[in-house]
Amino acid sequence: MIRIGIVGYGNLGRGVECAIRQNPDMKLVAVFTRRNPASVHILTEHVPVVPMADAAQWKDKIDVMILCGGSATDLPMMSPAIAKEFHVVDSFDTHAKIPEHFAAVDTAAKESGHVAIISSGWDPGLFSLDRLYGQAILPQGKDYTFWGIGVSQGHSDAIRRIPGVLDARQYTIPVPAAMDRVRCGENPELTAREKHTRYCYVVAEEGADKAAIETAIKTMPHYFADYDTTVEFISMETLEKNHKGMPHGGSVIRTGKTGWNEECNQTMEFKLTLASNPQFTASVMTACARAAVKMHDRGITGCQTIFDIPPLDLHSGSREELLATLL
Amino acid sequence: MIRIGIVGYGNLGRGVECAIRQNPDMKLVAVFTRRNPASVHILTEHVPVVPMADAAQWKDKIDVMILCGGSATDLPMMSPAIAKEFHVVDSFDTHAKIPEHFAAVDTAAKESGHVAIISSGWDPGLFSLDRLYGQAILPQGKDYTFWGIGVSQGHSDAIRRIPGVLDARQYTIPVPAAMDRVRCGENPELTAREKHTRYCYVVAEEGADKAAIETAIKTMPHYFADYDTTVEFISMETLEKNHKGMPHGGSVIRTGKTGWNEECNQTMEFKLTLASNPQFTASVMTACARAAVKMHDRGITGCQTIFDIPPLDLHSGSREELLATLL
Repeated sequence: MIRIGIVGYGNLGRGVECAIRQNPDMKLVAVFTRRNPASVHILTEHVPVVPMADAAQWKDKIDVMILCGGSATDLPMMSPAIAKEFHVVDSFDTHAKIPEHFAAVDTAAKESGHVAIISSGWDPGLFSLDRLYGQAILPQGKDYTFWGIGVSQGHSDAIRRIPGVLDARQYTIPVPAAMDRVRCGENPELTAREKHTRYCYVVAEEGADKAAIETAIKTMPHYFADYDTTVEFISMETLEKNHKGMPHGGSVIRTGKTGWNEECNQTMEFKLTLASNPQFTASVMTACARAAVKMHDRGITGCQTIFDIPPLDLHSGSREELLATLL
Repeated sequence: MIRIGIVGYGNLGRGVECAIRQNPDMKLVAVFTRRNPASVHILTEHVPVVPMADAAQWKDKIDVMILCGGSATDLPMMSPAIAKEFHVVDSFDTHAKIPEHFAAVDTAAKESGHVAIISSGWDPGLFSLDRLYGQAILPQGKDYTFWGIGVSQGHSDAIRRIPGVLDARQYTIPVPAAMDRVRCGENPELTAREKHTRYCYVVAEEGADKAAIETAIKTMPHYFADYDTTVEFISMETLEKNHKGMPHGGSVIRTGKTGWNEECNQTMEFKLTLASNPQFTASVMTACARAAVKMHDRGITGCQTIFDIPPLDLHSGSREELLATLL
């Protein structure tokens, strides 16, 4: 039995809780929170909610801590700190800062003899993996990542910060014509605008200047200015009714050429269609918790990523079983 | 530089030769054949074609032998034998006999201290890998493999054995409606007939009984009887002109449920669209040759599969580079 602790109980933490329930070789031991534990109600019966500060006391009762904090401020502190006492899995997703995060976590995990798997999820995570397999197998080629249709939390938050906005939901939508050009091996150079469009559902305050809000969104640098953006004002009721889900997904496409004169088009595509983005990320992290234990059993320590994990370490089956049934 | 030998020079061997040319960290050293070497003309200049029987003499000049023989009779003998002197990569694809082949190769490779990667390619190979990732991440779910549109060599050969047939090409075609049902999370139980159709282009001898040939094909057990099969008679010219390619591909789809009450549909799909089946298989094998060397450098020996290979061992980049650019 792999004994798991969850650190942080938002959408992602709850997703991990659900995923553990689907894996008979795992057991949820405790949930750790910075909030008042009495205010946190989890789904699993007979599992305690414990103050974050007491985590170290659970050292002998938990194998892997799955860290469900944010990448901006939580994980850079949390992952190295908790890797001193436990194996850890995080979903650190600030791509540009991964090498720095890796180094900090690696030092902590190596010193304490633990395995720490960072940046697990789907991007970074499975999408990164498919970019890697694509490049390794088809070295003459190009890879493309399309995201969506899905809700982008960061873009939704950016809209919410505009004066006069009560709530908002931003959908990232890949451009089908661009995907078709990629899939047929054209290897196009595509701008941000050509790859994705952005659709914003906005709830405005009564009497707010909607034209001003729309302009503020469409001209916002980095977030919207480089995209074709559509803004639709809706009521709070409609938003609650139709836009409470957290769907996401996308495709990683590798188009390569093989043959003596590179005469053959070869295309690899990996596509995710997710009804719940946080639950899927949680499911990847939970499989990584198993890999952390299996890798440690073979004497491995330090920081690891999905690139380092022999795939069968993610699966509950034995090598013999997987060779016989899956290969 | 990884020094490679190719054993067997058919479509697959030629594909490996082309793939090596695309990987600047690899070098083709020699091609080994059971035919008269003088009759084998390879594409790379200044590389010798050598009798198979002399392979052992190349022990110090070659790191990895990529074995391009057939699974029925060549590889069961060849892979364990050659693993005594070299690292080897094969594409053994008789799914039911993989455990047996694994055991034989493992013994030979462990005794000699080599790494032997078997069953590399796309099925077995990448498709197996995607079945594994799917099951590990979405344990409550179902996976489906669809093949095609593509030429099946085994089915084409079966038709050629019918009296009165001069040549034939069989295309396996996935049923779009079945794929749609799977993708939308319906988790249907599908029979062979519901998943794939078979389309046969047949060149008959002058005066042959076409009706009898058509019946012989459509009622052939295992190969065609369980499928909706279409037979079209064409001329040798048309076959030469339109059906000389070896396209293939397919999709592995994992449809899973997440959430406390399994209320969210999550779909992972991996799709290959290949203009040349043997060249793509060869490209996977060539990346595996790199992995064999990297794994051996870390002290690993014995038989390995794509399930055992840490993904970054397939890529020519360093860990630091891949973390910074791909993750």
